[in-house]
Amino acid sequence: MSATVSPLAPTSYPALPEIGGVRFATAEAAIRYKGRTDVLLVLMDEGTTVGGVFTTSKCPSAPVDWCRARLAGGKARALLVNSGNANAFTGRKGRDAVTLSAGIAAHAAGCAPGEVFLASTGVIGEPLDATKFEGVLGATAARAEGRDWLAAARAIMTTDTFPKVATASADLGGTGIAINGMAKGAGMIAPDMATMLSFVFTDAAIAAPVLQALVATETVDSFNAVTVDGDTSTSDTLLVFATGKAGGAPIDSLDDARVPAFRAALAAVLGDLAVQVARDGEGARKLVKVTVEGAVSKESARRIARSIANSPLVKTAVAGEDANWGRVVMAVGKAGEPADRDRLAIHFGGIRVAVDGERDPAYDEAETSAYMQNPEIEIRVEIGLGEARDTVWTCDLTKEYVAINGDYRS
Amino acid sequence: MSATVSPLAPTSYPALPEIGGVRFATAEAAIRYKGRTDVLLVLMDEGTTVGGVFTTSKCPSAPVDWCRARLAGGKARALLVNSGNANAFTGRKGRDAVTLSAGIAAHAAGCAPGEVFLASTGVIGEPLDATKFEGVLGATAARAEGRDWLAAARAIMTTDTFPKVATASADLGGTGIAINGMAKGAGMIAPDMATMLSFVFTDAAIAAPVLQALVATETVDSFNAVTVDGDTSTSDTLLVFATGKAGGAPIDSLDDARVPAFRAALAAVLGDLAVQVARDGEGARKLVKVTVEGAVSKESARRIARSIANSPLVKTAVAGEDANWGRVVMAVGKAGEPADRDRLAIHFGGIRVAVDGERDPAYDEAETSAYMQNPEIEIRVEIGLGEARDTVWTCDLTKEYVAINGDYRS
Repeated sequence: MSATVSPLAPTSYPALPEIGGVRFATAEAAIRYKGRTDVLLVLMDEGTTVGGVFTTSKCPSAPVDWCRARLAGGKARALLVNSGNANAFTGRKGRDAVTLSAGIAAHAAGCAPGEVFLASTGVIGEPLDATKFEGVLGATAARAEGRDWLAAARAIMTTDTFPKVATASADLGGTGIAINGMAKGAGMIAPDMATMLSFVFTDAAIAAPVLQALVATETVDSFNAVTVDGDTSTSDTLLVFATGKAGGAPIDSLDDARVPAFRAALAAVLGDLAVQVARDGEGARKLVKVTVEGAVSKESARRIARSIANSPLVKTAVAGEDANWGRVVMAVGKAGEPADRDRLAIHFGGIRVAVDGERDPAYDEAETSAYMQNPEIEIRVEIGLGEARDTVWTCDLTKEYVAINGDYRS
Repeated sequence: MSATVSPLAPTSYPALPEIGGVRFATAEAAIRYKGRTDVLLVLMDEGTTVGGVFTTSKCPSAPVDWCRARLAGGKARALLVNSGNANAFTGRKGRDAVTLSAGIAAHAAGCAPGEVFLASTGVIGEPLDATKFEGVLGATAARAEGRDWLAAARAIMTTDTFPKVATASADLGGTGIAINGMAKGAGMIAPDMATMLSFVFTDAAIAAPVLQALVATETVDSFNAVTVDGDTSTSDTLLVFATGKAGGAPIDSLDDARVPAFRAALAAVLGDLAVQVARDGEGARKLVKVTVEGAVSKESARRIARSIANSPLVKTAVAGEDANWGRVVMAVGKAGEPADRDRLAIHFGGIRVAVDGERDPAYDEAETSAYMQNPEIEIRVEIGLGEARDTVWTCDLTKEYVAINGDYRS
């Protein structure tokens, strides 16, 4: 955990309501370090449904394998999260640890092991000693309550400098529902999947297949639109749980008239959490919003935006408060997507710095340099070939990123 | 230009022979800074053939457009290179500057503008004032000689900390030939094309189509196998010139019995230059060789090797002398190529750190940490699914990289 909080951290946190049917508690299991909260146990009432998305890594962690297999059941009663050890690349020992962890959590929660979801974050390649959960989870379950969401969000942090929570509410045909979410993630963050650990809870009543479909689509412009370093974890997990405790008939079809309201609220929570992850990018001093317009398709716009957002040269220029739009041109060019050098226009915030393939005639170095001193930078590129657009969030690349990652394991 | 020379710089330079038909000189044209050598003019005798490869950027520089178009002619008499300004993203002004530059160089060399090749490196997006070549190139041509290759290599440097030259010789059916090469490049280096500026000269007699074919294939495992930051320049250019002054009948077919000997010598020069570029990666303190074995195809091995070599988390771990093989697993997983977590083996140098999907039972932290203190690190991954292998070269990611690139333009 970093000593100093990101300068981009939120200055206040929203008040998160209780979610009917959700209780949780944290604990110290000494997974890696003693005297540190490293376990979060969430208990959910019977009838809770679940949807989720996971890393696209070809070498996923044992907990990711476990959750993927459990998702087919669509039912959840417990979530066990630990920090300190990712239980990734741990071979048969990892699979055994997952089975043992689920058994211990199921015993504590009074449910079947197949209703337990697991997530682990921390060091890769070290065996996770799941026996450490034994004797801890029973007391943890007994303590569970539904109020202190910030404490829960803190328990899952690794190199994060601040806890990440978000909340939204919606009216589903006269029934008020709430959605609370938390996330952890600061490095090894790249889109293509959930890109971090995030857990979202709602009291809405939603059938598992509908929930799964909504989670998949609403990830695209939230967690999949965030990148810190282009690296993809073996453990990325987003799980959304719906207890149904708000009442009302369950939503069991995407055609249900209540879906748009729920979708909007879910998108708000996921989007909020995702941008917080970019704000807490390892060593970040600036939040960068990259928007690509006029591309031939959304996919093309996304690839160009990612190329810019992942470019070390663009990110170091932002860190140096240098309006180096030439590097933006470079990143557009290397994306390999349709682009015409002589139609490109580039904006930093409200300032057009380049147009028609060359520097804007009105370019003013002093004005642009002053803009670059802002903590939040917007880079907007007009491709000029189509109508599609997309936005990706990232942060700058600083010496602190190198320091954090050159000295993480030891 | 950086103040301190890379610790990975060669301790001595080879003696480069003169190449019959090649003369050159450097000059100060005050392209960007006064009092600094920023121009290289190379003159080649009539009958010189040329082959080349260029950046895959969709936004190439004006000189790249110019060279691509000229390559069809297959003839070269002059090469004009400047540093300080890349003449990239300069719109119509850039095209005009290229035409003017070629005209001035052609006048100085006594050839047609279509026989002039151009390369520019430096800042993107600033108009290049080609009139600065006027009054400079005539005197430069008059000074041209064929001996001081290091001075030529120095003239094309930007953020490089040392000049890069290489040489090889071959016996082509009783005719001895030589190949000299120079390169510049330290950042914005990623494969997919020449990845930097490199100019190679031989006195062999080779028809242009044969030369072009050889350049294209021999780039694959040299310049295309090097990455510093995954960023691709708008200006990457590799040109190979063959004067034919060594004598002998020209090689006019790839089936010619002399081709293998020439190909081997060319590969040696290009490979040598490419690894020197990795050694001079911006801020580099360690050279990293990434080898992937047992992949399903060479292309797959290359993609996995690049994923490892471009991972900021792997590169910062190397900078921190941390044998963090978990991050290597991460990078294998994110490559998206066929891989089976439970068959992976990972080696750092001669030390196997992981096998069968988990930490090697014989893993010794002290031994591995001692290895990581070497200036040259080899990471070798066995995928265990096939017979194909590939190697990519890179360097570590240090705070100095961030410092260099956060303060380059200003």
